[in-house]
Amino acid sequence: MIAKSVLEKFKGIVGEQNYWDSPADLALYSFDSSVEKPAQPEVVVRPESTEQVAQICKLCNDNSIPLVTRGSGTNLAGGTIPVTGGCVLLMTKLNKILEINVKDMYAVVQAGVITADFAAAVLEKGLFYPPDPGSQKMSTLGGNVAENAGGLRGLKYGVTKDYVMGVTFCDMEGNIVKGGGKTVKLCTGYNLTGLMCQSEGTLGVMTEFVLKLVPPPKASKAMLVSFDSIMDAGNTVSGIITNHVLPCTLELMDNFTIKTVEEATGAGLPVDAAALLLIEVDGHPAQVEDDYQTVLKVCRENNGAVKVANTSEEKEKLWEGRRKSLSSLARLRPTLVLEDATVPRTKIPDILVALEEIRQKYNVTIGTFGHAGDGNLHPTFLCDKRDVEEMARVHKAVDELFAAALRLDGTCSGEHGIGIAKAKYMVDEVGEGTINYMKQIKKGIDAKNLLNPTKMGL
Amino acid sequence: MIAKSVLEKFKGIVGEQNYWDSPADLALYSFDSSVEKPAQPEVVVRPESTEQVAQICKLCNDNSIPLVTRGSGTNLAGGTIPVTGGCVLLMTKLNKILEINVKDMYAVVQAGVITADFAAAVLEKGLFYPPDPGSQKMSTLGGNVAENAGGLRGLKYGVTKDYVMGVTFCDMEGNIVKGGGKTVKLCTGYNLTGLMCQSEGTLGVMTEFVLKLVPPPKASKAMLVSFDSIMDAGNTVSGIITNHVLPCTLELMDNFTIKTVEEATGAGLPVDAAALLLIEVDGHPAQVEDDYQTVLKVCRENNGAVKVANTSEEKEKLWEGRRKSLSSLARLRPTLVLEDATVPRTKIPDILVALEEIRQKYNVTIGTFGHAGDGNLHPTFLCDKRDVEEMARVHKAVDELFAAALRLDGTCSGEHGIGIAKAKYMVDEVGEGTINYMKQIKKGIDAKNLLNPTKMGL
Ligand SMILES: Cc1cc2nc3c(=O)[nH]c(=O)nc-3n(C[C@H](O)[C@H](O)[C@H](O)COP(=O)(O)OP(=O)(O)OC[C@H]3O[C@@H](n4cnc5c(N)ncnc54)[C@H](O)[C@@H]3O)c2cc1C
Ligand SMILES: Cc1cc2nc3c(=O)[nH]c(=O)nc-3n(C[C@H](O)[C@H](O)[C@H](O)COP(=O)(O)OP(=O)(O)OC[C@H]3O[C@@H](n4cnc5c(N)ncnc54)[C@H](O)[C@@H]3O)c2cc1C
Repeated sequence: MIAKSVLEKFKGIVGEQNYWDSPADLALYSFDSSVEKPAQPEVVVRPESTEQVAQICKLCNDNSIPLVTRGSGTNLAGGTIPVTGGCVLLMTKLNKILEINVKDMYAVVQAGVITADFAAAVLEKGLFYPPDPGSQKMSTLGGNVAENAGGLRGLKYGVTKDYVMGVTFCDMEGNIVKGGGKTVKLCTGYNLTGLMCQSEGTLGVMTEFVLKLVPPPKASKAMLVSFDSIMDAGNTVSGIITNHVLPCTLELMDNFTIKTVEEATGAGLPVDAAALLLIEVDGHPAQVEDDYQTVLKVCRENNGAVKVANTSEEKEKLWEGRRKSLSSLARLRPTLVLEDATVPRTKIPDILVALEEIRQKYNVTIGTFGHAGDGNLHPTFLCDKRDVEEMARVHKAVDELFAAALRLDGTCSGEHGIGIAKAKYMVDEVGEGTINYMKQIKKGIDAKNLLNPTKMGL
Repeated sequence: MIAKSVLEKFKGIVGEQNYWDSPADLALYSFDSSVEKPAQPEVVVRPESTEQVAQICKLCNDNSIPLVTRGSGTNLAGGTIPVTGGCVLLMTKLNKILEINVKDMYAVVQAGVITADFAAAVLEKGLFYPPDPGSQKMSTLGGNVAENAGGLRGLKYGVTKDYVMGVTFCDMEGNIVKGGGKTVKLCTGYNLTGLMCQSEGTLGVMTEFVLKLVPPPKASKAMLVSFDSIMDAGNTVSGIITNHVLPCTLELMDNFTIKTVEEATGAGLPVDAAALLLIEVDGHPAQVEDDYQTVLKVCRENNGAVKVANTSEEKEKLWEGRRKSLSSLARLRPTLVLEDATVPRTKIPDILVALEEIRQKYNVTIGTFGHAGDGNLHPTFLCDKRDVEEMARVHKAVDELFAAALRLDGTCSGEHGIGIAKAKYMVDEVGEGTINYMKQIKKGIDAKNLLNPTKMGL
């Protein structure tokens, strides 16, 4: 229980208009986009500046109050659930784009800016910010960095951490800490920028970034390829990569997902296909043409039927279909367990085989889609969490899926992070020594374990 | 003083053939490529496996013995000088390339592999490892990662950290810790791979990496451009970038450096030029041609005389000339203070103006060369450290250079790191809060401060 006098201090820092403690308001911040068990905070605040954030950190530290930073709550791992109560800090008012430097190709932004808004502002200035998670219309840049979010363009352009040049954040003593900066190279002390990427709110509250921008590609070509067998699709992915083509997008959807998305969106997907790939190549016009020819050849060798999107509207419709995979699947059953297993790219066919065996063995319903070009699939288990027997089968199936991913030199999480949902799988992947090392970092920085406690098992 | 019984334990771990403690042997490891004051270790060991490294870490920790990891000692910041004595651990026998996976485009290597050997082995398999520090024929991959080394290709291809997918290292408790892995995307817990890049031997001893490889460019074009004014060269750099061309190499040499290199190497450099740029564009043949035309246009607008290298031998000769800049300058005077100030790329002209003012004000001799396309120059002060009065002027000049870099939104170190040489400049750049945060990380991981103590001021 936070003392009334301390609650008054929270209010004093952020002002009445940015302070909530009524049960109804607190309930709003007890859950996120995951299926994990909700838990209520005791107070919710919405600071308007880095200085206010620093003051809140210090207030929490001085009074041993857990502090959970929340962007838009779209994470899928329970990362913003205030498991041990305390304070939820909303980033939504730190939402200004402070500078877009066209000549040196970087931007300075606050952490609460919505991903898609930022990408659009950059595009307006003739530049390009590639990371585009499926949640980009809702997610914040701070959430993207804290989860090191990937997206549809990850294969060629990399993930969020590849675009973070600098970061400003607050530690629990109320210090304002800076990592990196505005130069493309920088080696002054520890790579704090790297460390904060993927830190899931456990090492500090990030308020500002310097983000790298790139020139937009001069040309691109997008296509939809349908297959009668999902293995053919998997082999196509691996064939494209080994032919040294790096498409900017290389996404897979299985038949179950295709049908569900088509029903929900009418995007024009081929509902009879066993699987489809959405492929886009971009770059210099001559390279786009060459890459397109190589992709065509590989698709044909693997019995794929290629349909080129002739206009950007046609392409957007297909891509929007892909982005709606998750929400479309979510309409079918009450509960949706979305996984994030990732393998080296040429092992996509192997993980697809494993997945089919698991599906049969446990008689579970799975829709599979994802960033196949990154080796990153999202097998999505449709179920009902009130059905204890069904959930037991789902959990066993997930355990086996991760075991298969690790056997194939892969990982339990390609982009969604650990939160509370994946904590139990970490040790199998990284070992006790590594967990211990992570704990030591956490302890050094946040001795009282107040920054998003229990996440990542820390 | 390390007890004799403990020295025996060191010997027991690595074997007689990998153990030294005679004064002559110890003296060999008392200095590195920097001008910092030498200091002798008490024992030198050369482990042959990760397990041996882990045992040495534990032995040092149990007996409170400082531990300095050494690759090839080519760092320029005093990073391998055993300031507080203790044990120097040589990485040179952990020099195996364990796997080059052509299909999934990664390699697994031990940390003591020489950079150029690795790049050559990769090329033989038809792939490409871009990071190429000037020291690549001597430096180890471990040293590259620990310093986050840049190189001549940094502008387009990035620096060492952009190629580290996974790392294995030992902590002081003798645990074997793993960060990252073999998938292109991975979000399992903290980004330890990012943290270890640039950690300068202070957070663990790295023994193995998974390194990212890329397809080699299909075509390239290299040229040498001479200018009658160094400002014209600076404006050309900024003009190329703002025209959205990202050359793979964009290097600058001033007249002093040109003349010195030409004398030392006979590479065929234009000794009358006020400055020259070495430029290479690469990629798809059509893009190379387009980029080349844009570069030509920008060079001509800035009064540059362009000479294209027609064969790869011609190019290699010029590039070798650039790589020899440092060693050529080193022949002129007994002491060489090499700086590493870095600014946003379009501010190259401004830092050149500042540098000229500083040169005149303090009447110092400076040869300037470096990765201009990265905003990263290496103004090199030629002097004699026995001349107290001259050194005082040099130190003041360096102080002003860094102040100018920070004023221009830059950094004190673009790629050489902090070591002991730059520790005093850190606080001006990053502030007390940041230094404190770095200290907390270090304390969490290495409570007794035994891993490369005093480096980065930690
Ligand atoms: C429909 C849908 C599609 C998705 N598609 C993708 C995808 O393609 N790729 C992908 O990677 N993910 C995807 N996700 C997951 C999610 O959207 C991303 O993880 C996103 O980055 C979260 O952003 P957020 O602002 O909602 O963060 P939140 O959910 O609010 O927070 C996520 C984590 O970051 C921490 N955090 C947030 N802001 C800060 C800050 N300023 N400082 C410190 N810590 C902070 C939180 O404490 C929490 O641990 C998807 C989710 C949905 C619902
Ligand atoms: C002629 C010349 C040209 C150069 N050109 C460049 C350039 O273009 N770009 C550039 O960035 N640098 C350059 N340098 C600097 C230097 O070569 C690089 O910093 C290089 O990465 C150092 O490698 P090394 O193996 O010699 O490391 P060392 O000098 O032996 O060590 C450097 C640091 O890394 C630590 N370390 C080494 N190995 C490990 C390990 N396995 N685990 C943990 N810590 C470790 C050491 O403790 C030390 O702090 C140049 C140096 C010279 C002499």
